[in-house]
Amino acid sequence: MTAVMPTGVETARDLVGPALAAAVERLTPDVRKVAAYHLGLAGPEGAPPGTLAAADGRARGNGRARGNGRAAAGGRAGADGRAGADGRTGPDGRAGPDGRAGADGRAGPDGRAGADGRASGRRGRAPGAGKALRPALTLLSARAANAAPDRGVPAAVAVELVHNFSLLHDDIMDGDTERRHRPTAWTVYGTGAAILAGDAMLALAQDILLEDAAPSGVWAARALSAAVQRLIAGQGADLAFEQRDDVALPECLAMAGDKTAALMSCACSIGSIHVGGAPGLAMGLAAFGAHAGLAFQLTDDLLGIWGAPEVTGKPVRSDLRARKKSLPVVAALSAGTPEARELAALLAREEALSEDDLARAAGLVEAAGGKGWTEAEAATQLAAAHQCLADTDMPADVRAEFAGIAEFITARQW
Amino acid sequence: MTAVMPTGVETARDLVGPALAAAVERLTPDVRKVAAYHLGLAGPEGAPPGTLAAADGRARGNGRARGNGRAAAGGRAGADGRAGADGRTGPDGRAGPDGRAGADGRAGPDGRAGADGRASGRRGRAPGAGKALRPALTLLSARAANAAPDRGVPAAVAVELVHNFSLLHDDIMDGDTERRHRPTAWTVYGTGAAILAGDAMLALAQDILLEDAAPSGVWAARALSAAVQRLIAGQGADLAFEQRDDVALPECLAMAGDKTAALMSCACSIGSIHVGGAPGLAMGLAAFGAHAGLAFQLTDDLLGIWGAPEVTGKPVRSDLRARKKSLPVVAALSAGTPEARELAALLAREEALSEDDLARAAGLVEAAGGKGWTEAEAATQLAAAHQCLADTDMPADVRAEFAGIAEFITARQW
Repeated sequence: MTAVMPTGVETARDLVGPALAAAVERLTPDVRKVAAYHLGLAGPEGAPPGTLAAADGRARGNGRARGNGRAAAGGRAGADGRAGADGRTGPDGRAGPDGRAGADGRAGPDGRAGADGRASGRRGRAPGAGKALRPALTLLSARAANAAPDRGVPAAVAVELVHNFSLLHDDIMDGDTERRHRPTAWTVYGTGAAILAGDAMLALAQDILLEDAAPSGVWAARALSAAVQRLIAGQGADLAFEQRDDVALPECLAMAGDKTAALMSCACSIGSIHVGGAPGLAMGLAAFGAHAGLAFQLTDDLLGIWGAPEVTGKPVRSDLRARKKSLPVVAALSAGTPEARELAALLAREEALSEDDLARAAGLVEAAGGKGWTEAEAATQLAAAHQCLADTDMPADVRAEFAGIAEFITARQW
Repeated sequence: MTAVMPTGVETARDLVGPALAAAVERLTPDVRKVAAYHLGLAGPEGAPPGTLAAADGRARGNGRARGNGRAAAGGRAGADGRAGADGRTGPDGRAGPDGRAGADGRAGPDGRAGADGRASGRRGRAPGAGKALRPALTLLSARAANAAPDRGVPAAVAVELVHNFSLLHDDIMDGDTERRHRPTAWTVYGTGAAILAGDAMLALAQDILLEDAAPSGVWAARALSAAVQRLIAGQGADLAFEQRDDVALPECLAMAGDKTAALMSCACSIGSIHVGGAPGLAMGLAAFGAHAGLAFQLTDDLLGIWGAPEVTGKPVRSDLRARKKSLPVVAALSAGTPEARELAALLAREEALSEDDLARAAGLVEAAGGKGWTEAEAATQLAAAHQCLADTDMPADVRAEFAGIAEFITARQW
């Protein structure tokens, strides 16, 4: 089925885009350049001072990203043919030579950037424009507490900065060379500059919430801080899972809860917290966001195997090619069936997987029940999300918009 | 001359050490392990849950850091012979083959860890114990506002977390393989885990300040946030300077102000801010810390060229070997004399510098006035720091202790 992007996502882009650009203006020039590029607000050479905000968050890359002077001079990126920053192309053979990093489909939007990036792609938007899903949830969150949508803007900017800090650092760790159809920031500016820009965005996010002297600003900052710690724990688990062949389904779900659902939950509740909404409202919205976030990740993992390239922007079966411990795969491996054992043997093979291998692996995931379990679990989480909305007191139109976004992010095409 | 470590530094270790360990306990296990190792609270395999605080911050590495299973399994660190994580050993020839990274003396405590690390070394302390300089300043800062020293502990922990977040990320960016006489965290756990642990320490620092619901907690958090942004700007400038041969003295001083003095200034003022001291006091202490921090960096840069290895823990003339754009070097290069031109030519040579070259370079820095300028500037900054103390209202014993620390960090031996 084709999902239609809720209008709130468009509204959020218009409200939050300029505020995000204004926030980035506050960073020092070197750091700002990297952050603005990563956020899709500017090309690799940066925007002239004072123009980011005017660009209203829709400016696009200028296409000069590859082979620019910086990367060449520094010799840190791209040109030397190394796929990652962390030695993955080293002698351990985990990546690079066997085609499991870089050009093999791990590049491009990751699971977390997926829905929004793809949605914007289908609507023909600029690459930098696909970043309104979490802001939309945060503006709705403020409206749920009967505040005007624009009062949710600082919290929405903070959430978006944290989301992007995380993507920026993840790209380094994962050795990903492309995001939102552009070279990743570390390949353009070097690892050091990309680490620093992520650090700066994280610190800036907290500071934006604290500009509001009300006590609710502190609570919002602490809610964001808690989400950041879970985000980090989830990414750490994800990295650790790559080294293991015994990942169990509960820990895989916990990882998705940390890596994806925690920030989604924060996005859904922090707007109401920041405008001083009732604690019960914030808790209801946080629960909604946690379930919707898990449903989002489950859907994303299905797309990572069965998603059509024109929808996902990634090669078909890209997650299998990268041998990701995604939820359908782990569910299948846990089944204890002959198909599960064959799948385990296939994924444990030293050599790269052929297209036939990948098709076989996808069939085995399905035959071992991985696809069915994931679809059922996504439906369960979506239903739980809707139940949270029904149980939480808020204006009817706000509830309907939350519900629409939940449907949208879980009803993507494959 | 030999400087005697002020007793306040010892006191700070006893007060802040357990609180720092307790803060680290709050991180998730994978992240905690890396942070505890980096902070010198545990060996590479981590400490059993609940034992970090009991170790009171003095536990030492267990010596199994090199060649442990993790690094070997991940293949991300050390074993593959790559000095850095950012491609510095790549075809650009900036490091690695020419001996300018890793074993050449860039390893070990950097300028910022310098004074405390070295001081503790002279006193025969465990490697993890050399981290009480900034905490001592922060506890004094709380006392300056007539608060009991223990009320400054949360702010001291936050400053120490930020300092160590920065060191952890800097080690990755700089490709440094040793700190405080142990392998750096990224070489033990991999780049990804080290990036995440730094991120987590930064977010934790802010959260610790916000646990105090008083408005002063927010101001303290924002003061720290501002220092973090300057720290990041300074490190960014430092990275950028490596690519340039036209660094001017004012920008080099500005870089030192950002990279070193900003957090020192924060350490000196944030205690008083956090306990609700008068704004005038905080401003006076911030100014003191800024001057003392610059004096610290100027002294450290002198040690980087003329420091005795047994004092600095680094090979003699290590900063020249690494061709760092340190303040004495930039001052000398700016002199416009024949010696300055000879120095520029020497440092621009493609090949590695011999011991004779390094001795010649050190002589040229001195002949071109770089040593004299740096010594004079350090004295000027130290005098300005003392003037700030004199101009700021605080208990006499607190003022004397601040003065003692300022003397200590600028009167190191070489």
